[in-house]
Amino acid sequence: MNIKRERFRIGSAPGAENDMTGQMKTAVMKKGLHPGALIHVGERKVEKVRLTVMDYNQDMFVERELGTVDESLEYADRETVTWINVNGLHDTEKVNRIGEHFGIHPLVLEDILDTEKRPELDDYVDYIFIILKMILVDKETGRIDAEQVSLLLCKNTVISFQEGEGDVFEFIRERIRTGKGRIRKAGADYLVYTLTDAVVDNYFVALEEIGELIEDIEEELLEDPGAETLKDIYGLKRELVLLRKYTFPLRELVHKFQISESPLIDRNTKLYIRDLYDHAMQIMDTTESYGDMISGMLETYLSISSNRMNEVMKVLTVMATIFIPLTFIAGIYGMNFENMPELEHHLGYPGVMVLMLIVGIGMVYFFRRRKWI
Amino acid sequence: MNIKRERFRIGSAPGAENDMTGQMKTAVMKKGLHPGALIHVGERKVEKVRLTVMDYNQDMFVERELGTVDESLEYADRETVTWINVNGLHDTEKVNRIGEHFGIHPLVLEDILDTEKRPELDDYVDYIFIILKMILVDKETGRIDAEQVSLLLCKNTVISFQEGEGDVFEFIRERIRTGKGRIRKAGADYLVYTLTDAVVDNYFVALEEIGELIEDIEEELLEDPGAETLKDIYGLKRELVLLRKYTFPLRELVHKFQISESPLIDRNTKLYIRDLYDHAMQIMDTTESYGDMISGMLETYLSISSNRMNEVMKVLTVMATIFIPLTFIAGIYGMNFENMPELEHHLGYPGVMVLMLIVGIGMVYFFRRRKWI
Amino acid sequence: MNIKRERFRIGSAPGAENDMTGQMKTAVMKKGLHPGALIHVGERKVEKVRLTVMDYNQDMFVERELGTVDESLEYADRETVTWINVNGLHDTEKVNRIGEHFGIHPLVLEDILDTEKRPELDDYVDYIFIILKMILVDKETGRIDAEQVSLLLCKNTVISFQEGEGDVFEFIRERIRTGKGRIRKAGADYLVYTLTDAVVDNYFVALEEIGELIEDIEEELLEDPGAETLKDIYGLKRELVLLRKYTFPLRELVHKFQISESPLIDRNTKLYIRDLYDHAMQIMDTTESYGDMISGMLETYLSISSNRMNEVMKVLTVMATIFIPLTFIAGIYGMNFENMPELEHHLGYPGVMVLMLIVGIGMVYFFRRRKWI
Amino acid sequence: MNIKRERFRIGSAPGAENDMTGQMKTAVMKKGLHPGALIHVGERKVEKVRLTVMDYNQDMFVERELGTVDESLEYADRETVTWINVNGLHDTEKVNRIGEHFGIHPLVLEDILDTEKRPELDDYVDYIFIILKMILVDKETGRIDAEQVSLLLCKNTVISFQEGEGDVFEFIRERIRTGKGRIRKAGADYLVYTLTDAVVDNYFVALEEIGELIEDIEEELLEDPGAETLKDIYGLKRELVLLRKYTFPLRELVHKFQISESPLIDRNTKLYIRDLYDHAMQIMDTTESYGDMISGMLETYLSISSNRMNEVMKVLTVMATIFIPLTFIAGIYGMNFENMPELEHHLGYPGVMVLMLIVGIGMVYFFRRRKWI
Amino acid sequence: MNIKRERFRIGSAPGAENDMTGQMKTAVMKKGLHPGALIHVGERKVEKVRLTVMDYNQDMFVERELGTVDESLEYADRETVTWINVNGLHDTEKVNRIGEHFGIHPLVLEDILDTEKRPELDDYVDYIFIILKMILVDKETGRIDAEQVSLLLCKNTVISFQEGEGDVFEFIRERIRTGKGRIRKAGADYLVYTLTDAVVDNYFVALEEIGELIEDIEEELLEDPGAETLKDIYGLKRELVLLRKYTFPLRELVHKFQISESPLIDRNTKLYIRDLYDHAMQIMDTTESYGDMISGMLETYLSISSNRMNEVMKVLTVMATIFIPLTFIAGIYGMNFENMPELEHHLGYPGVMVLMLIVGIGMVYFFRRRKWI
Repeated sequence: MNIKRERFRIGSAPGAENDMTGQMKTAVMKKGLHPGALIHVGERKVEKVRLTVMDYNQDMFVERELGTVDESLEYADRETVTWINVNGLHDTEKVNRIGEHFGIHPLVLEDILDTEKRPELDDYVDYIFIILKMILVDKETGRIDAEQVSLLLCKNTVISFQEGEGDVFEFIRERIRTGKGRIRKAGADYLVYTLTDAVVDNYFVALEEIGELIEDIEEELLEDPGAETLKDIYGLKRELVLLRKYTFPLRELVHKFQISESPLIDRNTKLYIRDLYDHAMQIMDTTESYGDMISGMLETYLSISSNRMNEVMKVLTVMATIFIPLTFIAGIYGMNFENMPELEHHLGYPGVMVLMLIVGIGMVYFFRRRKWI
Repeated sequence: MNIKRERFRIGSAPGAENDMTGQMKTAVMKKGLHPGALIHVGERKVEKVRLTVMDYNQDMFVERELGTVDESLEYADRETVTWINVNGLHDTEKVNRIGEHFGIHPLVLEDILDTEKRPELDDYVDYIFIILKMILVDKETGRIDAEQVSLLLCKNTVISFQEGEGDVFEFIRERIRTGKGRIRKAGADYLVYTLTDAVVDNYFVALEEIGELIEDIEEELLEDPGAETLKDIYGLKRELVLLRKYTFPLRELVHKFQISESPLIDRNTKLYIRDLYDHAMQIMDTTESYGDMISGMLETYLSISSNRMNEVMKVLTVMATIFIPLTFIAGIYGMNFENMPELEHHLGYPGVMVLMLIVGIGMVYFFRRRKWI
Repeated sequence: MNIKRERFRIGSAPGAENDMTGQMKTAVMKKGLHPGALIHVGERKVEKVRLTVMDYNQDMFVERELGTVDESLEYADRETVTWINVNGLHDTEKVNRIGEHFGIHPLVLEDILDTEKRPELDDYVDYIFIILKMILVDKETGRIDAEQVSLLLCKNTVISFQEGEGDVFEFIRERIRTGKGRIRKAGADYLVYTLTDAVVDNYFVALEEIGELIEDIEEELLEDPGAETLKDIYGLKRELVLLRKYTFPLRELVHKFQISESPLIDRNTKLYIRDLYDHAMQIMDTTESYGDMISGMLETYLSISSNRMNEVMKVLTVMATIFIPLTFIAGIYGMNFENMPELEHHLGYPGVMVLMLIVGIGMVYFFRRRKWI
Repeated sequence: MNIKRERFRIGSAPGAENDMTGQMKTAVMKKGLHPGALIHVGERKVEKVRLTVMDYNQDMFVERELGTVDESLEYADRETVTWINVNGLHDTEKVNRIGEHFGIHPLVLEDILDTEKRPELDDYVDYIFIILKMILVDKETGRIDAEQVSLLLCKNTVISFQEGEGDVFEFIRERIRTGKGRIRKAGADYLVYTLTDAVVDNYFVALEEIGELIEDIEEELLEDPGAETLKDIYGLKRELVLLRKYTFPLRELVHKFQISESPLIDRNTKLYIRDLYDHAMQIMDTTESYGDMISGMLETYLSISSNRMNEVMKVLTVMATIFIPLTFIAGIYGMNFENMPELEHHLGYPGVMVLMLIVGIGMVYFFRRRKWI
Repeated sequence: MNIKRERFRIGSAPGAENDMTGQMKTAVMKKGLHPGALIHVGERKVEKVRLTVMDYNQDMFVERELGTVDESLEYADRETVTWINVNGLHDTEKVNRIGEHFGIHPLVLEDILDTEKRPELDDYVDYIFIILKMILVDKETGRIDAEQVSLLLCKNTVISFQEGEGDVFEFIRERIRTGKGRIRKAGADYLVYTLTDAVVDNYFVALEEIGELIEDIEEELLEDPGAETLKDIYGLKRELVLLRKYTFPLRELVHKFQISESPLIDRNTKLYIRDLYDHAMQIMDTTESYGDMISGMLETYLSISSNRMNEVMKVLTVMATIFIPLTFIAGIYGMNFENMPELEHHLGYPGVMVLMLIVGIGMVYFFRRRKWI
């Protein structure tokens, strides 16, 4: 069980900067700035902001890495589906440039750059804006971390913004390249669905990890609980509180997606979004179930603890209670009075020994009847 | 009580593969596949996929086992009610073939093959799709297992998909064969109602089993609680968390069924569905009540535990407190000072014995007043 | 307090057959029967099914006991209000006959015979169907039992079905006979209201009984809690869980009654139903309050338990801690070394006694400062 | 703290008759009476039913005590606002007479006389009926008591019914007499608002009292918790459960008042009712907050209790553990074997003393490392 | 950790006057006054009421401190945006004067002066009225305090009322002066949005502070919990209960703002309010999460407490249980019987020592097997 021991340590965890209180920094950092001022809130996770573009339709596809934002614009105005992906958010100028070209509201750009937003979907008529959380579980510390992924669905164009380099979209690119499945035949809305689905599927990975942790700790709890078990349970509870914050808005997000009447979303894609909604519900269900289980574990821990103390107390009580009167008897005949006739009697010693035996057996009998031994 | 001892053991239970974390595997296994890709998720529970068809109306019925999917199609297009039943899901080709013939959306086929879905009903205009969970209680380990049953209600045709071989539909087949009751007179929608009702009724069996477990553990709790009782309560709580996951979506499912305006569902069948809704509500009520009871049991266990410790502590305290001062007095007169006049006095010994008696009786009196003995 | 001691004993209670798990038996017994098959589920509570009829209007009334169902039918078709009452449900043929005559749907008849349904009201256009629970508190065991009462409101006719013989409707019959109050002037809907009101009022009797129990146990809890108190609290909680199952659907039932637009219910009666709704709300409120109180009692019990242990521990600690060092000192001077100069000194003995006194007083002072004694 | 000691004593409290279970008596007392039968349920709080009437408009006002109901009727039919106030409810004849004159439904009269109703507002087209609870805190016992106040808003007339003599309406009368504020200029609906507001404001007084109690007990809890503290917390919780029963329906009541489209309520008065709604919300918020605080106190009490036990245990353990081995060593050299060379050695005694010293210091060192002393 | 020690002390905290029970004083102070009577409820936080006015449009701005209310009126009627700010509320005459000029309802003025209102937004057609709470965390005591800020949005004019001197609006004034951002170009509705946003952003600062406290206490809890930790957790819980009271109405407030159809609010501003709504949701989410965490901490504390007691008990039990039988044996051979052959035997002493050794080792072995040492 020791491999998990380093989990949930507070303060020393590398991912600890990005925890709950981190979310407050936005407001503090931004006080004094007018609303809509572009400022990147969050850790700088990549060296250099990187832009890539994929442009495709049923018959062809183009994939390019771009130097400047303007290079992407030539693709955006075509009839083909264009996917512009931005890795890294600290170059606010580039984000601003994209915003200008596609007519994105400054508040939206601000939200893209503020990596502490909750998941949500907003329909701005000309485009749909989605904020998602990519859940990552730090294998080292077991702590949950979340990277923000923002999606903009414009006409024929999808723009995705990510904080860091590595993503869960590689398999989607591969599918576009090879033309497998429906993706090359469908429009930009289907691409947004696919991207959202990829991020949502990542929740399952995190849940699976947590599920395994629960099973481990459960086993430990029922087999050999110790002070560490308690810390593990507490840590788990803490992570789940965090996870719930990312999970609960998801349902509303997908629901809005599903009922949206925006012309940007094709009726055929709706069926897929319904599927996504089921996933969101399943994630919520499981998160809730995990919460119930962890509560049960805390209660059970307390009961087991109490049980154990009972065991310890019983042994102490039995030992002490048997020997205390015996020692007292021995103490009496250890007194130095001159006038103690029993001491001189030749049957005094064996008599006292027999008395002690009787008392001792009586005690044992008493405990047996109480089912303590 | 020992017969239940093997219950809820974690890790060693045969049904353990199909537990909560199992639900996550879907997403993990399927990452990289495009949405709608057909892949069977779950255990392979039968050797060979088996197809049977029943075709009936008020006047006749046909029952056949089929070799290929295509054989079933001749029945499907008639005016008679056709029930195609599929046991085993690993032969994705067969499922695909059915989907093609009846015009089923790939996402629906995907859901049929993914045995980790939550119960739900979706209306796809041309057909209605229902996912159900057949609750099974493993008699050996007391753990809850669920097998997925999917139903497709098309015009005049019902297709049911099951993971394993044995089902709870045998008595329905018997009713069709003998023509008892309303079933032969009614349409495909009534058949779907009957199938759903059979699955829902199975929940009652599981609840009854759990109810008996609760009574057993309750008795144990109030008569003679031990460490095992605690594990039993915890295990029960865990199973109930799982059961709730299968139970809660049921209500919405039946509600959707009831309010559906699909022409596939006859107005006369609605009355029966209302009855089904009552059943779903009753299942939910009972699950909730069980949850409340188990919570009460955990709290009570803790209190009983604490009570017992009190008992043990009292005995220890009484014994120790009576004898500690007595032993001290004996210790004094066991000292070897030369100048101890009491030792030589001829009333010293009886005097000390009387003193001890007084102290002892005083102690007993003190405890009696505190109602400890 | 001992008179309550026999309460809530599990397994041995006479009413235990009709407990929660009993509700499951329906499904189990009925598996294999087609829906709507008439079968009586529940205990057979009377020897012989008994039919009585009351027929009245403002000017006259007739009261008769009937041999066969058909005798009642002559009254049913008149303009007068006819109340047919059935005691005992095991003669399914009679129920069936009534159903046939009044055109009752087989599912409704099935529900009438299945005594494990939850309270509900269903509007079947031609008639309104109400299932109620008559709450009975077994004075011997304190356990809650429920008898099912079904009401059918047809045009000018009310049919009531009861499981057993004794009912709470006698005072209504008396009122019809004497013509007191509004009942003889009003229609069948008012009679149904009166019957429902009588059953609902019975909840108050049960709640009053439980309220008294709570007060008793509360007193016991705060004055002299023991292991029995805990069992009583737990038993109370259990009964309340059961009661809540019967209480909660009540509100929706009455609400449906109130908003019903059925022509069978007169506008004037609506005002009375509003009053009934208030009663249902009050029952729910009180049930909830009782639940909160019982939770508080469990928590308080745990705290009191813990408090008591503290008391016991303190006495033990004080006694042991005072005498342990003193006994040690006595032990030292009880050693048999030849070379112990203190032993021979003529002030050795009194000196040691003074030393012991000082140590003892010091200990007492220490405990006083800690406020333990 | 002792002044509060008499609080929450169960059974002996003077106000105890009017507690929760009291609410059930209505149903029990009234069984057998037809609905709408007038019977006074509750304590008889005044010797004689007293009627007063105030009749006013912007220019004049009349105030009179009345002997019979009929005297009031002359005022009721004028254009001026008439406020008829009834103190005491046991003279059902008077209430009946009022009902007859103003055309009040018998069920409403029944509700006025039944002092165990929950707060509510009902619109009977010709008049609006409001039931309120005047919260009183018994300064002696700290228990919450509620007196029922019913208001009838008819055209140009307001009738108020109170159980007892003293009321919280005196300042309203004063305002009418002096013509201060808006009251003389406004209609009957504003008077009803003012009366309701007066009753609602009284909740704040009760909440303030409870708030002070919470602060007292909180201080006690954190400074010097004892068995009494627990009883106080439990008593507080109990009272809050009661208070919640009176508080929660209030919100709906005021909401109905606010959205009412009755012509009896002037548009200008609506603004004032909105204010009332805010008050109701604030009362609910505070009640909820108090509930949370009391829960926290119970949990904290348990933890503090547990903490204290720890302290006690540590002292016992340290003392016992240090002296037990020392006493054993002394015991060894107190044995009377002839052949014990250490006893004769001239360094035997000091050697053993040094050994004891080392063992003792070692123990102390061990405990220091564990941070127990 | 000691720097936090002074936190949450009850009764002695300087900010304690403004706590929960303070909210009740309004009702008590105001009893007897007619509704709408202007009276200032709350602490007097500034010496002198101070009025400032800012008047601006895209091209110019004026900023002035005013002596009398009337001076401000000349600005109010222009086409430019006028912001009148009032610091201090005890000069009810000034507030009244403003009310008269702008046609504000007396109830609104009353609410402005009553600093114990809950956050809310009311649309009075001619103007919109907003009550906000500025959350302040007393760095000294860690207690949460709230200052009320009221906003009136009239046509082209915004009036803000504050209790004290210092505010969080300085950066907005700066922005108006410098003309940065959108503010000078937008209307009065945007100014109200900006002011509300500034107050809401202040919640984040309080949450951040609390988040840090949680982390500190969490660390303390898992590393070295003591009685102080418990008080800290309890204090934190208490503050959170308070914070929740200010937080929850916020969401509804902003929601009303967002869906308002008032012509006073421009369509362009709605986008910004949507952003505000996200903030309110985030504040609620975080408050909830903190509540969950604190609950978890209380439970964990109890478990850790129980764990520690286990440790202490084990040491005591092991020591006592090993030495109690040994001391008994020594006691036997300390008896003074004449006839004890073992005493004279030359192997008696070593034999007994060996016996003791065996017993001691046996005990240690027993405990090892039980994993207690």
